[in-house]
This record gives sequence, C-alpha cells and structure tokens, in this order.
Amino acid sequence: MSNNYVPPTLRFLLAARRCELHALESLAGTCELVVLAGKLVHALQKERGWSNLYLCSEDDDGLPTLAELGRHAADAEHEMRRYLDDLDAGSGPASDKAHFFNCVASALHRLEALPGLRRGIRDRRTSAQEAESTFTDLIASLLAMVFEAADSALDPDVTRILVALLNFIQGKELSGQERAYGVVGFQAGYFTEVQKARMAALVAARNRSVDVFTQFAPPAALQCWEGLDQQSQDVQRMQAMLDNTSESQRVGVALTEVWLDLCTQRIDGMRNVENLLAKALAQQCEKRIAETRKELGDRSLLLRRFTDRASGKEPSMVFRVQGRIADIPPQDGIGRDMDRSIVDILREQTLRMQDAADALTSVRRSLDERKQIEKAKWLLVSRYHLSEQQAHERMQRVAMDGGLSLGDIAGQLLNESRED
Amino acid sequence: MSNNYVPPTLRFLLAARRCELHALESLAGTCELVVLAGKLVHALQKERGWSNLYLCSEDDDGLPTLAELGRHAADAEHEMRRYLDDLDAGSGPASDKAHFFNCVASALHRLEALPGLRRGIRDRRTSAQEAESTFTDLIASLLAMVFEAADSALDPDVTRILVALLNFIQGKELSGQERAYGVVGFQAGYFTEVQKARMAALVAARNRSVDVFTQFAPPAALQCWEGLDQQSQDVQRMQAMLDNTSESQRVGVALTEVWLDLCTQRIDGMRNVENLLAKALAQQCEKRIAETRKELGDRSLLLRRFTDRASGKEPSMVFRVQGRIADIPPQDGIGRDMDRSIVDILREQTLRMQDAADALTSVRRSLDERKQIEKAKWLLVSRYHLSEQQAHERMQRVAMDGGLSLGDIAGQLLNESRED
Repeated sequence: MSNNYVPPTLRFLLAARRCELHALESLAGTCELVVLAGKLVHALQKERGWSNLYLCSEDDDGLPTLAELGRHAADAEHEMRRYLDDLDAGSGPASDKAHFFNCVASALHRLEALPGLRRGIRDRRTSAQEAESTFTDLIASLLAMVFEAADSALDPDVTRILVALLNFIQGKELSGQERAYGVVGFQAGYFTEVQKARMAALVAARNRSVDVFTQFAPPAALQCWEGLDQQSQDVQRMQAMLDNTSESQRVGVALTEVWLDLCTQRIDGMRNVENLLAKALAQQCEKRIAETRKELGDRSLLLRRFTDRASGKEPSMVFRVQGRIADIPPQDGIGRDMDRSIVDILREQTLRMQDAADALTSVRRSLDERKQIEKAKWLLVSRYHLSEQQAHERMQRVAMDGGLSLGDIAGQLLNESRED
Repeated sequence: MSNNYVPPTLRFLLAARRCELHALESLAGTCELVVLAGKLVHALQKERGWSNLYLCSEDDDGLPTLAELGRHAADAEHEMRRYLDDLDAGSGPASDKAHFFNCVASALHRLEALPGLRRGIRDRRTSAQEAESTFTDLIASLLAMVFEAADSALDPDVTRILVALLNFIQGKELSGQERAYGVVGFQAGYFTEVQKARMAALVAARNRSVDVFTQFAPPAALQCWEGLDQQSQDVQRMQAMLDNTSESQRVGVALTEVWLDLCTQRIDGMRNVENLLAKALAQQCEKRIAETRKELGDRSLLLRRFTDRASGKEPSMVFRVQGRIADIPPQDGIGRDMDRSIVDILREQTLRMQDAADALTSVRRSLDERKQIEKAKWLLVSRYHLSEQQAHERMQRVAMDGGLSLGDIAGQLLNESRED
C-alpha cells in the first residue's frame, strides 16, 4: 500500500483532470438529450402542422395521417422519457442540476396534456388556434429544457456545436410556427395587420437564431443549409403574397397546400442540417473524451514512473508530506524532477482551463438573449401574477406593437425593474 | 412496487429540490474549508511577521517563538489537509470542480516548500524579502483556492456571508503584508519612494477588500470591525510616519517593535471579526439546509398523499404516462387537484430559483475584480512565458508606477488583448 502513496498535489492535479473528463461525459449525455428532444420537436411540429390543416378544413381525410403523426411523436416522446428515466435513476443529485431538473419537470408536465389535446383535435372540440398554442408552448418548454441543459456545458469546442444545434432547432421551430401561422392565413384567404406583424416577428426571430447557427456551425452543416436556399426563397415569396392580402384582397384557399408543401420541404431540409449537426456533435464529444482520457492516462503513467523510481530509493524523503517537518532535504534528483513536472503540469493545466473559460464566455454570450427573455417572463409572472403563457404573450404583443424583438422588450423590462 | 409509482413530473420536481439540498450541503463543506484555510492563513501571517523580524535582527532570541509559530502553522496545515483528503476520497468527480481541484493542487504544491523555507530562515540562508514573498505567494494560493471554491456557491444568503468572509480574510492578509513590509522599513529606519508607493498600494487594496466585507457582512461582525477603529488609527499614524522618512531622515529602529505590536493587535482583532463571520456562516448554512430539508419533506408528503389517494382508486388513470395514449380521460377529481399542485409548485420553484439567480449575480459581481486579476496574470504567463509570480510582480509594478489598482491594470491588459 505504501508503495502506492500518491503525493496530494498530484492527486488533486489528476482529480481536476478527472472532473474535466466527467464534465465531458455528462456533456455527451446532454448532447444525446438535445438530439432526442430535437427529434420529438420535429415530430410535434409535423403533428401541429397537420392538426392545423385538419381543424381548418371540414373533411376528415386528414385523420389517418394525423393519427400516424401522433404515434410518431409518441414514439419520440417515449424515447426521450427513457433517457430521462435513466438520468434520474443513474446519477446522484448534482449541485448544478436544480434548474435543469426543474425545466424537465415543466416540460414533462406539458407533455401530460398531449393525449387530451389529441382527443380534442380529433373530435374537433379544440380550435385551431388553441391547438397551435398548446403545441407551441410544449415545444417551447422542450427548448427551454435543452437550452438549460446546455448552460452547464464546460468544453468550448463541444459547446460551439451544441449552441449551433440549439439555435438551429429553435430556428426550425420558428419556421414551423411560420408554417402553422401561414396555414391559418391561406385558409382564410388573407392576413389581418396584426397577423402580418406577427408573421414578420417570427421571420425576424428565425433569422436571429439562424445567424447564431451560422456563427458556430461546422462546415458540412453550413453547406447543407446553404443548399436550402431555393426552398427558402419560395417560402419567402409566398410570405410576401400573404403580406399583400387584406379582407378585400384575398388569395385562393387552394394555396394552403402549396404553402404547406413548401414549408414542409424546407423544414425537412432543415431536419437534415439538424442531423448533420447532431453527428458533428457526437463526433466532437467522442474526440474530446478520447483526448482527455489519453491525457489522464499519460499523467497517471508519469506519476507512476515517479513513484516507482522513488520507492526504489527512499520514498519517505520525497513524498512524505504529513511528517514533512523532518529536517533532511531530499538527497536525490527525483524530488527536483518531480517538482519541475508538477510545475509544468500545473501551468499547462491552468492555462488550458483559462483559455477554455474565455472561449466559453464568448460562446455563452450568444445564449444571453434567451436567458433575458426567460428572466423577463418570470418577472412578469411574479409581478402581475400571470401564468407563464400569459406573460409570454404579453411580451410578444408589446414587441409586435413596438416593432421590436422579444429580446429588446426583455431588456427594457429588466432595466425598468432594476431602476425601481 | 406499483403503489410507489411516482409520476415523472413530480419526480423531477423533487429531484430539483434534492439538487438544491445537495448544493447547500456541498456549500457548507466549502465554508468549512474556508474557515480552515483562514486559520492556516492566520498562522502563516504570524510566522511571516516573526520570520521577517528574526531575519532583520542579528540575535537569535526570536528562534523559540518562531519554532512555536511554525508548529502552529503546521497544525493548521495538517487540519486543512485532513479536510482535503476526505474531500478527495469522499466525493466522485463533479463536473464543476476541475478549476477548484487545480487550485488545491497549486496551493498544496506551494505548501511543500514550507519545510525548506523554515530551514532556510532558521539558518539565515534566506533573505527577509525572499521569505516574505514565499509566505505571501503561499497565502495568495490559499486565497485563490477558497475564492475558487466560493465560485460554485449557489445560495445567495450563504454566499453573501461567504463573500464577506473571503474579502475580510483577503483584507486581513493585506494588513499582514503591511505589517511585514513596515518591519522592513522600520528596521532600515526609512522607506524609499518605491517602498512608499508599494505600501500605499497595499493600503488601497485592503480598503477595497474591507469595503466589500462591509457591504455583505452581518451586523455582529460589522460592529466588531467598527470596534477596531482605535487600532486602525494607530497603525495609520505609524504609516504616515514612514511616509515622511527618507535616507537622510530616518526613524529609530526601536519603533519596529511598536509597529509590530500595533499591527499584531489589529490583525488579532481582525481575527475575531473573522471568527464571528465564520460562526454566522455556519449558522446560515445550517438554517438553509434545515429549511430545504423541511420543504423537501413537505413535498414528499404531498406527493405521497396524492399517490395514496390515487392508488386507492385507479392509479393507471391518473399516473400512468407511458401508456398514456389511452383514450379515457381521468374520471375523478384527483388528477385535477394534482395538476393544480404541480403547477403551483413549478411556478413557486421557478420563481424562487430565478430570484436566487438574480441575487447571486449581484453578490458575484463583487468577485469579478479578483477574477480579472487572475485572468490577466495568466494572460501574461502565456504571452511572455513568465512564471505566475513574475506575472503578478509585473502587474504590480505597472500598477504602482501608474498610481493604479491591480484591478485597473488587469482591465487594461484584458482590453488590449481583446483588441489584438
């Protein structure tokens, strides 16, 4: 046993490295959850689109497709729940997971409403707008959950791709909202001014999300996204069309299906980009875990070499630190070599961590707007005793009326509350 | 077993609360470490003061006291190491501990140099300045360790007192540096201009630390600090005396002991404030842990009440979510009550976490300057291949020459590097 005595300095150096490995492994888990949630969001988006179409039409032709899409979403939900079950059972309480677990509870709670919603849609007891907003809130809570999960990410390389993916999923969800919203317009044949403003706000928000994606995405995903240019232009043209409608200047209801097809093509194309990002994310996680494992192995080896050499001579000279008041200085060169290695490792490790922290800060800044919006929403909830959804709607309305983004409104609200 | 089925939403709500409890318990551990490190710092400060005195004098009268102070410091070191040993052995790798463990390694590595330093002082092979700077660097690494430990604190009430304590320990350390530095001056009979500037910088830095302490300290500690006013004024008067010296206008060497006594009185008085803070900190931790435990208990009870009532009827109606595609809506009122409770708990829990996060942000802002200094130091280390100590000295020199604080210099360095 005494041969295995590890000097405390080295023990903590290795422990620090092990913590980094642990953080990477837990980040890999987070990435897995993001991918599963992305899959569920995609399925729910499809279901929302078809639900809207079904509720706005009068025949029941859409029912079988709707039922199938519901089953797809239920499968994706089941997969995500299985992951969450393992997560809950597998890990002890971690100090930094409270916010995340709270978001999980919130998302799960909204998922409970799905079966009832599906019945309501099937039986036409639910209005198109009510269905849309329930789906949209559910998706928003899933997005809040994965954004919160990403908040404890500590590796900058992985986090860059993760942030690209999160923003792309968010951008795709906003595209999904455009689709659902457009269906309402084309079914009616026109958009009111309020509806036009709402559509414009969706487009602006989507562009912001996609901008963050392009800032952090790896080349393959970027290329795939640029390949979707044609679909994007087609969608934009139809949006411009809606923008020129009014109660007296309508477009034909037949355009609904064209719109739906175009949007669906674009969303499916975006789903491919999402898949590429998910793949890149998994690869980057694996790469960083392998690197960190190797470095940890190298260090353990170095340490063993030193302790072996030392124990062949007189271990108590070099490594005994508890009784270190002993007056005899180490007489061999091992203590000195060891000391140099420790200084080198400490220096290298601290510099690396500092660089990572800097890189992380700049990636995280892109998540700040989202946090501000969440924060402002909860400010309204607590001040005016609103529900989460009411608070969100109020912010959205103020933003629309003022031609501002949700982020701007959130910033204003938070500034005002600071001045109180 | 199926009677114990817990709906996932509630499970994650409780898991979030358990994470908060875990975070508080781990914060209580951090507070314990801060208190142990504070004790060691205090012992090292005394040893540094007497070492300085011994090395600047020519007789060996101080040796027995010096040996005794060395033993005291070794005891405090032993106590802290025992805590760290338990920490390393007891906890698995936590994602957020890598930086902290690295700081522990760094502090432990510096502690290894203590026995050699003590021999060097005893045998007069070490100069007074060398001894002072080795002690000071060691204390700085202990402070870096506890500041880093505090960085993952998540409870605002506890963190306020913790930040007050950390800054007070830092302020006391700066007082200790003033004492050691003054000894050099009174022994020589005068201060050079550079030495005067250095003393002024120490005083300014100490005032800043104490300001943060007064901002966050509980009343008892504040009162105790205000009671030290007389000692502070006496020390200031002697500092003013040194400020009026020059090579041609000296003061008597006999003043050294007066200075040392006054400073020691003040530092011992500060140690009492520190003890009050440590006590308040332990109490606050205990209080918050008891509150969180109680809340967790209440929630578990609530949950059990619901599951008991439900399982007396038809559990699969209300709680089965895996097979939730089932078409039958819950027929009793329990589902609805349960739902309301969950919504209430979710809302209350999220609001509370949001408030805590806000309060925490404002407490943490006070730690920013320290972080900037650390960051700027490592920037110099990596850019100019300096040692940590060289980098720190270079920043200190530039600050002194420009009449600026270390924080100002750090800010400038970081800004310049951003512009590159």
